Amino acid sequence: MKKIALYPGSFDPFTVGHLSIVNRALSLFDEVIVAIGVNISKKEFMTLDIKVKAINELFSDQPRVRILCYDGLTAQFCEDNDINFVIRGVRDADDFMYERRIANINKLLNKELETVLYFSESRYAEISSSMVREVYSYNGKISTFVPPIILKYIK
Amino acid sequence: MKKIALYPGSFDPFTVGHLSIVNRALSLFDEVIVAIGVNISKKEFMTLDIKVKAINELFSDQPRVRILCYDGLTAQFCEDNDINFVIRGVRDADDFMYERRIANINKLLNKELETVLYFSESRYAEISSSMVREVYSYNGKISTFVPPIILKYIK
Amino acid sequence: MKKIALYPGSFDPFTVGHLSIVNRALSLFDEVIVAIGVNISKKEFMTLDIKVKAINELFSDQPRVRILCYDGLTAQFCEDNDINFVIRGVRDADDFMYERRIANINKLLNKELETVLYFSESRYAEISSSMVREVYSYNGKISTFVPPIILKYIK
Amino acid sequence: MKKIALYPGSFDPFTVGHLSIVNRALSLFDEVIVAIGVNISKKEFMTLDIKVKAINELFSDQPRVRILCYDGLTAQFCEDNDINFVIRGVRDADDFMYERRIANINKLLNKELETVLYFSESRYAEISSSMVREVYSYNGKISTFVPPIILKYIK
Amino acid sequence: MKKIALYPGSFDPFTVGHLSIVNRALSLFDEVIVAIGVNISKKEFMTLDIKVKAINELFSDQPRVRILCYDGLTAQFCEDNDINFVIRGVRDADDFMYERRIANINKLLNKELETVLYFSESRYAEISSSMVREVYSYNGKISTFVPPIILKYIK
Amino acid sequence: MKKIALYPGSFDPFTVGHLSIVNRALSLFDEVIVAIGVNISKKEFMTLDIKVKAINELFSDQPRVRILCYDGLTAQFCEDNDINFVIRGVRDADDFMYERRIANINKLLNKELETVLYFSESRYAEISSSMVREVYSYNGKISTFVPPIILKYIK
Repeated sequence: MKKIALYPGSFDPFTVGHLSIVNRALSLFDEVIVAIGVNISKKEFMTLDIKVKAINELFSDQPRVRILCYDGLTAQFCEDNDINFVIRGVRDADDFMYERRIANINKLLNKELETVLYFSESRYAEISSSMVREVYSYNGKISTFVPPIILKYIK
Repeated sequence: MKKIALYPGSFDPFTVGHLSIVNRALSLFDEVIVAIGVNISKKEFMTLDIKVKAINELFSDQPRVRILCYDGLTAQFCEDNDINFVIRGVRDADDFMYERRIANINKLLNKELETVLYFSESRYAEISSSMVREVYSYNGKISTFVPPIILKYIK
Repeated sequence: MKKIALYPGSFDPFTVGHLSIVNRALSLFDEVIVAIGVNISKKEFMTLDIKVKAINELFSDQPRVRILCYDGLTAQFCEDNDINFVIRGVRDADDFMYERRIANINKLLNKELETVLYFSESRYAEISSSMVREVYSYNGKISTFVPPIILKYIK
Repeated sequence: MKKIALYPGSFDPFTVGHLSIVNRALSLFDEVIVAIGVNISKKEFMTLDIKVKAINELFSDQPRVRILCYDGLTAQFCEDNDINFVIRGVRDADDFMYERRIANINKLLNKELETVLYFSESRYAEISSSMVREVYSYNGKISTFVPPIILKYIK
Repeated sequence: MKKIALYPGSFDPFTVGHLSIVNRALSLFDEVIVAIGVNISKKEFMTLDIKVKAINELFSDQPRVRILCYDGLTAQFCEDNDINFVIRGVRDADDFMYERRIANINKLLNKELETVLYFSESRYAEISSSMVREVYSYNGKISTFVPPIILKYIK
Repeated sequence: MKKIALYPGSFDPFTVGHLSIVNRALSLFDEVIVAIGVNISKKEFMTLDIKVKAINELFSDQPRVRILCYDGLTAQFCEDNDINFVIRGVRDADDFMYERRIANINKLLNKELETVLYFSESRYAEISSSMVREVYSYNGKISTFVPPIILKYIK
């Protein structure tokens, strides 16, 4: 049976940290699904359409990565699509506490679902989507925080 | 290429929490190596010989689990044995901080080595080897904390 | 003198975790007041009226539990009503840090006020009102997270 | 039924922080038992005999405080003596994590046992027995950290 | 070369805790700049004009303190103004984690910028601007939390 | 008045992380004293004599760095030597909590003493003396963790 990992997030935008997690996950999983959570209420930095397009281009040479959008509960989405693994990158204790709460909720709703954590690489430890958005809003340089292909869609 | 996970620890003793991690890891990895760290200086609850025997019996029906002993650095051991993944169970933020330090040291010493974290199951969240040893030292009941086969070797 | 505990919260909704705290507090305190904080600015999941009705029904057989609404500072409310104890359930280090800040502010404002903490039961550790609201918003099943009587008022 | 709180610790020595917890607990509990854990392996700053004598003198005017020694598991001791409450003071997140582990182990061993936490007073937040021992070992002044009656037994 | 520390914040309002940091920083730095971040989107408790006036009056006798407003990135502002040090007060682990993220982002954007942390004084550990605003909104007494000169501008 | 920073530690061994803190502190302080704590009870990796010699050689070109040994309380040592600042590098929340306890104790003993914290550089975040000792004990490569001059004294 194929081992498929769901990598959920809002990826607003997709950073070099996210890219590192996907690439590392590919050496363990047969397929990695970048699952963009649709959040209607929250104002987004990149629209959903642009995000999908940009991340698709980023992985155009990697057939083992798929891009999907979903709204609703991650646990339900995984059950409906026979996905047994969720992967997440964790930077520090705060991230960990957050992920543990989410993972436990997912497990309450879907017993089969296993969340597996990766440590963020040290050099990416401070890079997050919200940080990129903030730097960008003040006209700061973001080119070291997002992959060049993603950057193209932001400018 | 086979995906092999090293599960290092002192397993003194091997608890139901450890068992849960191994069983869950088997659904992702092709093989799980329970790697008992040899720690000469520390006085042990179970001798190395007994530990190996007990854990071997515990997994006698599971050909995808192997028991190994090692001393030295985990990073070096993995490099010498072509193992690319280390797995660890994490209960809380303290565990996480500890594992992150270890994982980063391992990465400094062996760039190929990837540490992947599992959340401890909630029901096992308070069970640790040191807790079992303490309860045992006061003649408390430990049968819910260690698998029956391991228990046999403690009595 | 009667020992009265104020259990403040927004209880939006009242979960099985909240119920566990009240029941456990009843074995130490003579009376437990479920004190629903009124928060005009925040959009609520259950209206205040429905909350009061539902929680009242939940404790209709327990004369030692009272339901009150209040707005303003907890410290002031306790002083005005001669209540000397505040109780709170704590799940993890994040909860603890939050409660410590609140307790210290309360103490700065009302020296007599003592905050006493209970540990959440492990099996309820991931259940929170916000988690219930989120699961509900995606049509997930919430019946294991809230007491049946409360559930009746949500449907 | 009388509400009795066990306050376990090594109290080596008993500090002004410990005193604050006992005094505050007396306004909620009918009786507080200062339970000195006997730890044969650990070299102690004050001998058990001196500790008992000093703490007894400290509470000689307070009939609702009793001093006991015990070795073994707290959970077992409480069960044998019909004590349903354990109290502990908590200074910060580290303390909290530690107490949660202990409380959960106690609960696994004795379902009736309830651990209730008090926040340390801010002004005592840095005072611990180990800190007193360290300051004392370098001939530093410890008179603001331990009650005068205890101090008498240290000199 | 003069050693100048930038002390950035929203200071809404400026508390006794902030005052303590500035005063302590003056014994190490030649000059301290209280840098009020302009945040258009956030509704403010005190307007920017009033804040500047109040803090200026507070330090009217201290020529080594300057008040500035800025919007944009702290890292950029420091680079443009040849400021090499940022100072921040830290109360607990949560504060620390927050400051580390900010400091690292600043360092990514401006390699010369050094962030230096002060511990909040214990007696001010629970005092924050948001706490003052909340107490004030319920007509609670805030006179122990803000310097008298600042208070004058709030009433 | 000269601004002198005491940088206390056991420096067993002195790492590239320690070196980074000293160098960064030199841009703020007039003088930095590397203060090697003498700990008779603890078995040391490098003897005190060798440590002093090695660190002295490391800073032989930097007249603003002095090496001292001391036993006893840091707070007392600073008072006796008219030193008003202690500096420490902090890697994560655990380090922070530890330093806060120490700083507060120091402040209780010596009101004049100010502890100022530096963030460890990300690239050194996992490097500690104990980690170097452990890697060394297993014949691992430590040359990237300690400055070359220090390394010379270890081999």
